Amino acid sequence: MQDLWLVGIGTGNPAHVTLEAVEALRNATLILVPRKGAGKEDLADLRHDILARIGVSAAVIEFDMPVRDENLPYVLRVNRWHDQIAAIWARTIAEARPEGGPVALLVWGDPGLYDSTLRIASRLDPRPRIRVVPGITALQALTAAHAIAFNTVNGAVTVTTGRRLRDHGWPIGAETVIVMLDGECSFQRLNPAGLHIWWGGFLGMRQQVLESGPLAEATPRILKARAEARERHGWIMDTYLLRRDTVKG
Amino acid sequence: MQDLWLVGIGTGNPAHVTLEAVEALRNATLILVPRKGAGKEDLADLRHDILARIGVSAAVIEFDMPVRDENLPYVLRVNRWHDQIAAIWARTIAEARPEGGPVALLVWGDPGLYDSTLRIASRLDPRPRIRVVPGITALQALTAAHAIAFNTVNGAVTVTTGRRLRDHGWPIGAETVIVMLDGECSFQRLNPAGLHIWWGGFLGMRQQVLESGPLAEATPRILKARAEARERHGWIMDTYLLRRDTVKG
Repeated sequence: MQDLWLVGIGTGNPAHVTLEAVEALRNATLILVPRKGAGKEDLADLRHDILARIGVSAAVIEFDMPVRDENLPYVLRVNRWHDQIAAIWARTIAEARPEGGPVALLVWGDPGLYDSTLRIASRLDPRPRIRVVPGITALQALTAAHAIAFNTVNGAVTVTTGRRLRDHGWPIGAETVIVMLDGECSFQRLNPAGLHIWWGGFLGMRQQVLESGPLAEATPRILKARAEARERHGWIMDTYLLRRDTVKG
Repeated sequence: MQDLWLVGIGTGNPAHVTLEAVEALRNATLILVPRKGAGKEDLADLRHDILARIGVSAAVIEFDMPVRDENLPYVLRVNRWHDQIAAIWARTIAEARPEGGPVALLVWGDPGLYDSTLRIASRLDPRPRIRVVPGITALQALTAAHAIAFNTVNGAVTVTTGRRLRDHGWPIGAETVIVMLDGECSFQRLNPAGLHIWWGGFLGMRQQVLESGPLAEATPRILKARAEARERHGWIMDTYLLRRDTVKG
């Protein structure tokens, strides 16, 4: 049975790597690194940088990520894409490591959190034996960078996506909302009254940019900081936390 | 200005510690470790174990946690308790390190997530300069142990407390709910139809216990495993994720 280790590496700060991740990467015999295409070289470079710092003996093989078919409906498009990636993994592993041994994949953040690696791995046939090594997520990187609490005392937090925020608005009854995978600054569509935002781009990385404040006042600053950072680096990944002002932390 | 470093150390697995946390603890000049009273020696021992593995040069000082006044209403009780802890920190730091230097506190999990350390630190006068080092949380330790995803594709997740689940029931519209700080197995009060649970105690630690399944069927197994583990170790910390069966991961 193939051992497949999904190793969370944190949000891009090489120091986010845990001792467990270091050990797993040193014990793997093959490490797969995705090439994500133009503008995302930073991410592949960062994986190689982390591997070089750790010092791994495994073969490190890059593979090209397939392109998503934007003509398909969202769920079908994502499912089809995952099928294609699973096929690429199976082929790459069979070619590079026919004698077996643990295969590791470096996963941005944590393998469980808004990441498709587990879903892709579940498509492999025969099914591998999966080990998940937890990693620092953007949730923790965001609250740490702002030195704020994730939750209020005895409070609940809704973690959601930019797409859901656009389609469904503010989650019913929520006091704290963290938004992931939002390429469209969807906070602009909310009624800003009584909302405070803590925003971060390139969290944990040397390019990190932070903005915060009452939503109405902070929005233009965030849009400007985000556009500038994106222009400078060719891409951006950002996350934010929204909280009702009336709630005392 | 006093530098106060709140260092997330993960959920009790010494290998959860990040390289950033290792570096911070090595650079601190004073490290405060709470003594939490009978039955919680494991937690203080674990902090000392982590410090010994890392190899720190700082003075490591233990302090006794005050006892919460259970006669007060919840919010007042928590606020009063935080005031008392802040006073103990200030006194301990002034006595142990009158010449200054960075002071570190080891925080279970992550300093932002259902932890009072940031709120206590905000009570210090003069206010210290706070640095937060993110840590692996029980959310990641739970999903990693079960090798499951935190969220469904484009799905939202509500992170809440046992108290809220008891007082307000299933969060309106939620599909995935993670429950923290639940000493009463509050999942028993839910209508189990259509719910699946993934439960874990002592997550990441050598004592780790896991159970999962359809809620109705898994509940007696969880209650039994939890009672046995609590009896054996004198205490328990557990977390669980609930998801509607109808939702495809």
